[in-house]
Amino acid sequence: MKHDKVMNVAKKRGFLWSSFEIYAGVAGFYDYGPLGAILKNSIIQKWRKYYIVGEGFYEIESPTVMPEEALKASGHVDHFTDPMTECKDCLEVYRADHIIEEVINRDVESLSNEKLTEIISNEKIACPKCGGHLSHVWNYNLMFQTLIGAKGKKTGYMRPETAQGIFIQFKRLLRFFRGKLPFGVVQIGKAYRNEISPRQGVIRLREFTQAEAEIFVDPKDKTHAKFPEIKDKMLKLYPAEIQMAEGDSIEISALDALAEGLVSSEILIYQLYIASKFLKEIGIPDEVIRFRQHLPAEMAHYAIDCWDVEVYTERYGWVEIIGIADRTDFDLKSHSKHSKEELSVFVEYDEPKQIKKLALKPNMGKFGPSFKGDAPKILKELENIQLKTVKDTIENEGAFKLQIEDKSFELLPEHVSFEEVEETVRGKKIFPHVIEPSYGIDRIIFSVLLHTFTEDKENEREYFKLPKDIAPVEVNVFPLLNKEELRNIAIQIKDNLRKEGLIAEFDASGTIGRRYARSDEIGVPFAITVDHESLEDKKVTIRNRDDLKQKRVPISNISTILDDLMNYRVEFEDIK
Amino acid sequence: MKHDKVMNVAKKRGFLWSSFEIYAGVAGFYDYGPLGAILKNSIIQKWRKYYIVGEGFYEIESPTVMPEEALKASGHVDHFTDPMTECKDCLEVYRADHIIEEVINRDVESLSNEKLTEIISNEKIACPKCGGHLSHVWNYNLMFQTLIGAKGKKTGYMRPETAQGIFIQFKRLLRFFRGKLPFGVVQIGKAYRNEISPRQGVIRLREFTQAEAEIFVDPKDKTHAKFPEIKDKMLKLYPAEIQMAEGDSIEISALDALAEGLVSSEILIYQLYIASKFLKEIGIPDEVIRFRQHLPAEMAHYAIDCWDVEVYTERYGWVEIIGIADRTDFDLKSHSKHSKEELSVFVEYDEPKQIKKLALKPNMGKFGPSFKGDAPKILKELENIQLKTVKDTIENEGAFKLQIEDKSFELLPEHVSFEEVEETVRGKKIFPHVIEPSYGIDRIIFSVLLHTFTEDKENEREYFKLPKDIAPVEVNVFPLLNKEELRNIAIQIKDNLRKEGLIAEFDASGTIGRRYARSDEIGVPFAITVDHESLEDKKVTIRNRDDLKQKRVPISNISTILDDLMNYRVEFEDIK
Repeated sequence: MKHDKVMNVAKKRGFLWSSFEIYAGVAGFYDYGPLGAILKNSIIQKWRKYYIVGEGFYEIESPTVMPEEALKASGHVDHFTDPMTECKDCLEVYRADHIIEEVINRDVESLSNEKLTEIISNEKIACPKCGGHLSHVWNYNLMFQTLIGAKGKKTGYMRPETAQGIFIQFKRLLRFFRGKLPFGVVQIGKAYRNEISPRQGVIRLREFTQAEAEIFVDPKDKTHAKFPEIKDKMLKLYPAEIQMAEGDSIEISALDALAEGLVSSEILIYQLYIASKFLKEIGIPDEVIRFRQHLPAEMAHYAIDCWDVEVYTERYGWVEIIGIADRTDFDLKSHSKHSKEELSVFVEYDEPKQIKKLALKPNMGKFGPSFKGDAPKILKELENIQLKTVKDTIENEGAFKLQIEDKSFELLPEHVSFEEVEETVRGKKIFPHVIEPSYGIDRIIFSVLLHTFTEDKENEREYFKLPKDIAPVEVNVFPLLNKEELRNIAIQIKDNLRKEGLIAEFDASGTIGRRYARSDEIGVPFAITVDHESLEDKKVTIRNRDDLKQKRVPISNISTILDDLMNYRVEFEDIK
Repeated sequence: MKHDKVMNVAKKRGFLWSSFEIYAGVAGFYDYGPLGAILKNSIIQKWRKYYIVGEGFYEIESPTVMPEEALKASGHVDHFTDPMTECKDCLEVYRADHIIEEVINRDVESLSNEKLTEIISNEKIACPKCGGHLSHVWNYNLMFQTLIGAKGKKTGYMRPETAQGIFIQFKRLLRFFRGKLPFGVVQIGKAYRNEISPRQGVIRLREFTQAEAEIFVDPKDKTHAKFPEIKDKMLKLYPAEIQMAEGDSIEISALDALAEGLVSSEILIYQLYIASKFLKEIGIPDEVIRFRQHLPAEMAHYAIDCWDVEVYTERYGWVEIIGIADRTDFDLKSHSKHSKEELSVFVEYDEPKQIKKLALKPNMGKFGPSFKGDAPKILKELENIQLKTVKDTIENEGAFKLQIEDKSFELLPEHVSFEEVEETVRGKKIFPHVIEPSYGIDRIIFSVLLHTFTEDKENEREYFKLPKDIAPVEVNVFPLLNKEELRNIAIQIKDNLRKEGLIAEFDASGTIGRRYARSDEIGVPFAITVDHESLEDKKVTIRNRDDLKQKRVPISNISTILDDLMNYRVEFEDIK
């Protein structure tokens, strides 16, 4: 199986390692080894190029430990759960929907706990470990819990997504962007999910890296300035309707997808396109990518449209690696309510509007003497009540009753009068909607390794055909033979390339063939070989990983040549 | 106070924000705002340039959640504590040494809990909040604790330092570096410390970012290949001896510091030098940096020499921002012992050695029949015992007793004979020593903001004089007047610069003077202004933040000019 080969090479050469191996390991955790960490950083830097430099968004970084109040507001304390069942005999725990899927091969996502319990019972699903009885299914909260502070009184959690840190800072962010929509804010960092029983390697981690963008837009305006530039791009969509009719994904242009109402907005389609462009650029081919819309039942309660960018994998089938959702105003409204801070935006109308509105005028001769020191409080309270209601109630019932703290007041017709006034209104307060592309960086790296792994039978080699600009080691320098005079030149070339900022390595061990093979395996795009002629002609051989072609170039030009090659300014065959 | 000004601008403009403010905040947590996050990333990327590209180290990334066994081995479960005291009346908690220092201004670091309790009692130190009695002092563990897995049985902690992730992977790392010392491995990421009562802003965070390098060396060879290159560099050292004599720090060359035994090794001095070079390059001037050696009492139990790189701050005095320690083989030995995995290195001798050693020969005529099926087990057990002891015991006492599992055996003279044999030994297993530079990234960023903040009275401005290559926004583009034809050109210039990968911003709001002031304040190194003449001559004015000089340059050259300026290839006065 190709999957196993890839994972073996990834382990052997230092891309991905199981964590805490010397302590028998802990499921759901992975280390990035020396090559994996560079690859991950390069992919994240490219992501920043796309979203920060390219789209003009800004990044923030908020803590991974969060206080309970914030996650109560976001809904995670109550709803970030998975259905769990426990073996009554051996006490092993299972994710209920997964165990049902495994045993009777039936998709039970989004069914209720009662329904899952019923299926386990009816289908006589037993504990795979000991054959024991499985318990009823209940909701297990997936957040890692901890206590903040030495008093140990403040409950905290490791954040379940990076997005919440952005919503919480909305007020300051809005000021940073000078009060104007749309704007985008990204966060890249760790998120946590204390999985019940993770058994899918890098696909289901308890600690993972997200790169999320939250794009705040006017709910009435989900167009995108760059949509015209991408309107003819073809996308492989798998809309909910077609899934329900058990059809296949379709190829459709951005414009048609919008016209046919398959995707709910320009901005959402634009984000799908950007995501596919990004994935292609890091080595995941179009053929293994599709956009699957969430089925109504699977969509998060806060979203109105949601698409998974899925990549096909040999072992796990189609896997979600990016989610692109229209989260509406759910989060900002919810944090507003819980924090009592107004997380809204004042949106100006194109033209100021003249509106008629009711105004209340206290009759000070009566109002003051009746309410004395409470008068200001009453006027303030009235600001929060629809004046129409107050007026109607006084007219119909002869009085309007107010309760302020523990005091009651009665507003009589003699206390106030009402008049209609004209007012110029420049705009109104709204809660922005949020469009969110959310990247699962670890799954993306797994996909990159899986889909760049190339079995080149003709040349008897297997290697990661990583795009040049994300390959962890950029160039290897070899002395053809392990002799001092050749070694010295090779080391000097390596050192000079390092000074230019390239990850260059020197290797003199084993035959040259063996060294090329090792270099190819980890995807080093170029290898430079110093031979005896180099001593005379001051030239070296540069070898291209992908087609094995070689060129002889002057030592003095190497850094320029590599810089041009790495930045795609010149093709290998054209170098001199 | 300059400190307050800096923190105000940092907050107002989006460098540093208190976390969870809308939920009343949580002490010990900070957000990096939109400008702070870019600054932080730039500094981290520069750090990678130094340690990965420059020094040839490799990075890994391991989980922030760690199982208890690993942190038991590292000593953190037992020793990562602070002395704590509680008010018996209001139940407020305090870090005992800090409260004593605050109240009676006496340095009590590294005193025992008993001693601290005694001081609190003798000096009648009361609860600052309510005046109540403070309890005896005890050790409070500073790790955030959590539970891994749904069964909730596995205790885990948020890692207290990134270093441990490297030690745990030592076996795989050694293989990656093909079994050869020295090699260096870095990790950059979050670490956690659940402070008892953090009250010093960014200086004392409960969640912070570390960049650590663990350099594994042969304990017998702590020289450094590049030491000759830096031997004449001057360092401001504050050795333990001078501190104890209440003297001042001294300026001394790297070579003299080594010769006088002030710093214990070449590699440690080299690391001090690299650190100071790095700090200078990100804008912290030499004058506010010193290297303070740990006093014998304050040094961690595992270290044999340890230096803090300290920066002077107006509010907190000298603050440690980097620690550079020789951790010896403490960690590898301890993880070896706890995990039962051998975390050692086979070091080859320069010349193979002939050694004489004792060999045991079982006399099969007697050994086999006596021990039967247990014979192999006994031979295996004997491999782990000093043969000299076995031989002497048999000779002196007539028998050697062994206990294997629950069985006892008696080795008699008839069972075995001993002979001296010669063996060629190519090397031996050793535990490497570890040299560790450990950077506190948050404190470094605070220091950069503090020490680049410039009060330019002559030009009536205050601004962050950030080095060009770490300034968050690289260039601002302004239309001199807010007119469409000028706006369009300015926006096009901004868009083109973005395509070149620069963070360029457009700003048309307010007077040009106000826009320059805003631009300077956040340290934007260059501003470009489009005026009416630009329509004719296709030139714009570029303005240098630091000296306010202006030059008129062709629009078509801007991106080349900026690229040269940002990469320090040309001075502002020389651009054309």
